[in-house]
Amino acid sequence: MTTRNRQWRLIRRPKGTIGPDDLEFTEAPVPALRDGDVLVRNIYLSLDPTNRIWMSDMDQYMPPVQIGDVMRGTTLGVVETSKSESLQPGDIVQYLGGFQEYYASPANLLWKIPEQEGVPLTAHLSVLGLTGITAYFCLLEICKPQPDETIVITSAAGAVGSIAGQIAKRIGSQVIGIAGTDEKCRWITKDLHFDGAINYKSEDVLERLGTLCPRGIDADFENVGGAILDAILTHINLNARIAICGLISTYNVPEPVAGPTMFRNILMKRAIVQGFIVTDYWPRRHEAIDELSQWIAEGDIQYQVDVADGLENALIALDRIFTGKNRGKQLVKICAEP
Amino acid sequence: MTTRNRQWRLIRRPKGTIGPDDLEFTEAPVPALRDGDVLVRNIYLSLDPTNRIWMSDMDQYMPPVQIGDVMRGTTLGVVETSKSESLQPGDIVQYLGGFQEYYASPANLLWKIPEQEGVPLTAHLSVLGLTGITAYFCLLEICKPQPDETIVITSAAGAVGSIAGQIAKRIGSQVIGIAGTDEKCRWITKDLHFDGAINYKSEDVLERLGTLCPRGIDADFENVGGAILDAILTHINLNARIAICGLISTYNVPEPVAGPTMFRNILMKRAIVQGFIVTDYWPRRHEAIDELSQWIAEGDIQYQVDVADGLENALIALDRIFTGKNRGKQLVKICAEP
Repeated sequence: MTTRNRQWRLIRRPKGTIGPDDLEFTEAPVPALRDGDVLVRNIYLSLDPTNRIWMSDMDQYMPPVQIGDVMRGTTLGVVETSKSESLQPGDIVQYLGGFQEYYASPANLLWKIPEQEGVPLTAHLSVLGLTGITAYFCLLEICKPQPDETIVITSAAGAVGSIAGQIAKRIGSQVIGIAGTDEKCRWITKDLHFDGAINYKSEDVLERLGTLCPRGIDADFENVGGAILDAILTHINLNARIAICGLISTYNVPEPVAGPTMFRNILMKRAIVQGFIVTDYWPRRHEAIDELSQWIAEGDIQYQVDVADGLENALIALDRIFTGKNRGKQLVKICAEP
Repeated sequence: MTTRNRQWRLIRRPKGTIGPDDLEFTEAPVPALRDGDVLVRNIYLSLDPTNRIWMSDMDQYMPPVQIGDVMRGTTLGVVETSKSESLQPGDIVQYLGGFQEYYASPANLLWKIPEQEGVPLTAHLSVLGLTGITAYFCLLEICKPQPDETIVITSAAGAVGSIAGQIAKRIGSQVIGIAGTDEKCRWITKDLHFDGAINYKSEDVLERLGTLCPRGIDADFENVGGAILDAILTHINLNARIAICGLISTYNVPEPVAGPTMFRNILMKRAIVQGFIVTDYWPRRHEAIDELSQWIAEGDIQYQVDVADGLENALIALDRIFTGKNRGKQLVKICAEP
């Protein structure tokens, strides 16, 4: 076994877009184990918009990553060495293993992934991982879509939005997605059966929402914020539900970003705007995983995984999320699957 | 009986502050009655921040007042003539009777006010009227204050805020009020027993909230919006509830107003922001009136009424609300009580 542990460390908080001098690709020794610990070799690293939040020192839902620390990230890995009876070498585990090859952790903090016939490992970092769990609870608990309602999904071709939209379709709602390329719009309408799609880069979102949502918008699964959220708020119905799952349009902006100009419509329409962070639903995750697994088996849910190769390319892959180049859930493959 | 009906008509939508050329003080004949109608002589006119919304053509919760129409307003009046069996001359009724001396209406639309020993008529347009009902339901149903929590009230010396804060004190919450003069701050702390007050015109609201809310803010009863809401959002706790009851700081601003810069904290703190309009609770109004009446009798709730004399002074009195000159609920006395 190697004693080299390659890793990305945060050495400066990015101002705006993440720059090459904000993180350093470096090496450290593979960590030693204490009783109860396991050593995990990361196979896949999940890249998420929230990584950008963790790099900042804004007030947030977890402590910011400290300068000099290994960058935080969700990983799927294989246990290499165990000083715990609860996990054995070869077990597949999920955890906040970080942007690195190896980590040591008390075994009881890790989430063991069951081996399932026909379920690729990458599913556990996408549709059956935090991404799918996010889509499931944020849609069902906050958007609460009904069969006769119109639901808008932003970042609709993204890892979370594409799952959320398909769940809403399963319920029978009218689902309109907003995405950034014609190809993505085609994918969500042709393959995922959304009722309509808007390319926010080439179309007038405000006007198109009016056309595609003639009965108004009953719920919004919001991943973006900014001008798109403003257009949506303009068209909301009475008692609309707006789930704030993400605000990716604001994460890379160095100055404070004003909230939506149509904020007053929250009052006029007696809307509910509610923030969502998936960790709050962690104790209930199996509800989501069980149902999503079944819906995938039934063919109601499709998902895409976009795998970049090599930990050294993690920042290039992360940039794909903020520029909309990813096709579905963006992962980095750190080593071969066992 | 006179045949003159003096009234304020909207002749132009105000841009910014309501100007002298936006409404016209004019006369019309006293309206004729159809079967089932009553003729009501208005005694008191309620002035409310929402009057400014009705003058605009923004998307809102009721149709805007049409140009040329009598300005909409809530009134308390006495039935002068009746062509209905359900109301008799001398009955006191509440309705959207408008900025005028007389109106005719089908009797079944009017809310008959019971005569109660020791309850002044003005109470029915303030603490026992829409103002008190607003404070009651918006606080209890959206802010949901708990005894060990910190609640912030904006426009805390206003007609709604002062009642909401006293209800929260009754529950045992820590209540911090924000108001615009030292006199108002003294009133809410000394007389209404709020735990603290901030004069937003002379103090740094962001910093003072940090000092007065050392455990953070669990709920906000928001009447103002703008920079004050931003300061509050900066200090909210996990799962905070922000009731948007009003956004008075934005009503007189002619250009679209950006939403709060700390909008992202709705996500980070998994807060709920919910709009409130009292008309949604109209069927449940008696719950509020019954409890508020009891709390007033028990001495737990105090209220102020600020009565301007003469319908011709309605716009001067309305301006008092937007400049914070009113002391409690602002009414206009149109004629003497019977």
